[in-house]
Amino acid sequence: MASQPTHFIAGDWGTSSLRLFLCQSDGAILGRVETGDGILSVAEGAFEATLIEKTAAWSARDDLADQQLPVVLSGMIGSRQGWREVAYATCPAGLDDIAAKCAKVPIEDASADLGEIRIVPGLTVRGPDGTPDVMRGEETQIFGALLSSPDLTEQSTFLLPGTHAKWAYVSDGRITSFKTYMTGEVFAALTGHTILGRPAVDAEPVSDDEAKAAFLKGVDGGAAEGGSGALLNRLFAARTRFLFGDLAPGAIGDYLSGLLVGAEIADATGARQATNARPIAIIANATLSQRYALALAHLGHESRRIDPDCVVAAHAQILRR
Amino acid sequence: MASQPTHFIAGDWGTSSLRLFLCQSDGAILGRVETGDGILSVAEGAFEATLIEKTAAWSARDDLADQQLPVVLSGMIGSRQGWREVAYATCPAGLDDIAAKCAKVPIEDASADLGEIRIVPGLTVRGPDGTPDVMRGEETQIFGALLSSPDLTEQSTFLLPGTHAKWAYVSDGRITSFKTYMTGEVFAALTGHTILGRPAVDAEPVSDDEAKAAFLKGVDGGAAEGGSGALLNRLFAARTRFLFGDLAPGAIGDYLSGLLVGAEIADATGARQATNARPIAIIANATLSQRYALALAHLGHESRRIDPDCVVAAHAQILRR
Repeated sequence: MASQPTHFIAGDWGTSSLRLFLCQSDGAILGRVETGDGILSVAEGAFEATLIEKTAAWSARDDLADQQLPVVLSGMIGSRQGWREVAYATCPAGLDDIAAKCAKVPIEDASADLGEIRIVPGLTVRGPDGTPDVMRGEETQIFGALLSSPDLTEQSTFLLPGTHAKWAYVSDGRITSFKTYMTGEVFAALTGHTILGRPAVDAEPVSDDEAKAAFLKGVDGGAAEGGSGALLNRLFAARTRFLFGDLAPGAIGDYLSGLLVGAEIADATGARQATNARPIAIIANATLSQRYALALAHLGHESRRIDPDCVVAAHAQILRR
Repeated sequence: MASQPTHFIAGDWGTSSLRLFLCQSDGAILGRVETGDGILSVAEGAFEATLIEKTAAWSARDDLADQQLPVVLSGMIGSRQGWREVAYATCPAGLDDIAAKCAKVPIEDASADLGEIRIVPGLTVRGPDGTPDVMRGEETQIFGALLSSPDLTEQSTFLLPGTHAKWAYVSDGRITSFKTYMTGEVFAALTGHTILGRPAVDAEPVSDDEAKAAFLKGVDGGAAEGGSGALLNRLFAARTRFLFGDLAPGAIGDYLSGLLVGAEIADATGARQATNARPIAIIANATLSQRYALALAHLGHESRRIDPDCVVAAHAQILRR
């Protein structure tokens, strides 16, 4: 008979990637697997088989052979396209609210050495005009960050940049509201599928300094005053500045990235008092975090980076509750 | 020996299409050819051959057999990727300025029954922050519209919607400034290459009323107050409204179109006093014009449509000067 588990498996299972961690009950990370098996790459229904395959080496460890390792998964795995659709929790929400709404999914393969699967719900909020917003996975990262950096609990602003960047506002340990900006996905669509990106194909690479200057010029352009339609006009500047020799083809991507990031930051910080004097907490890998930190500093905002591995601390707590 | 031409050929040669007209000297249109031979589809250097081929039937007409028909071309044909790069004229500019800066290109094929080719320059202007903007072809359409609708000469606002929508401001017959909005191209990139368009693929079509309601809901969202980064956030509403059942998959495209068009109109009209009480003159085909007229009316602006064939009146004048 299996003994009480001393370890568990934590997972951040998103649209395009899967990150799995072997952890001790206290959240210490003993091993990790990162793959491109995002939920859109997993053939229909094969989530269980994928999970068993990716964790087989851990289940087979001598010191864990007598345990059925419980699993906690967060991210798009809880969406309609994922393993099991888990109803969103509603803002304001704390870690307890999230833990209480987890879906429990049994493992059907009797030969697997895995315990019960918990899938974390996402979060939803309504904007002032009633427009819904959603996140799946970022809420767990934020709660993990609060556990590893308790000074952020009382009042803080989180930024999770990426395909769909999230700005989230925390008060007394609960996420009170958040906003999504499609910055990363819009950047990819514009550079890959409009006239703007064309000169950058096969362009001579520019120096780091030139890339940085183009990025910050873009940040200034994006953050300048103007209505929401101004962006549709400003994007065209990436074309005309190139036509007039103001922008090297190899720096167009940096300029465009700056335009979008600057616009995002100006909107997210302008509308909120919550950014007050405290540094904005960026949960991201080092490269993306540096890019945003540069733009934030340029616009007068302090920031600090938190490693995305913080998510595991929240998974450990969810399992304990 | 060829007699003095009584007819000429006018052409609007853009990035993705070619429109040619056989005209009398006074601008009356006798024939037209519209094809997909935009400058990007014409194999390198074959502009002359394409022109000769598409106009061969006119050159061969019995009543025109003794003439070498002169040709006036406007549009992207005068760009770096076109037949001959023609330096931009600078705002403010009237039809005389454009006519004076036309490039004259001889026909090299001696067997062709075409006279000299005039290629119209585009226009450039600098925004308040020094950012350049450019147009090629739209300036000729606007001058043509002024010839056919002289009441617009003193003071008017023109809108030429499309891939790169142009808003141009006319005072005393001259284009004083203009702004480009990448509305059409951004719409295509977002619907074709982001998560937003995915649910619309194979979606049940919606009724005209439902499409119109979704479009106008989008217009309201796009025109709402907010900085340029607000658009990156509002786009995501096309996703969440769908997820929450507020938006039928078949109406997502209309909603997105409304968001972008509303944002464009709010920015273009908000920044200008020139829209004053006069209707905005839309130069576009009937379908696109109706779409914009609907959005403009919804936001409290009158508009009137001008047929793009008006361009030929400007070509006739350029030839005469």
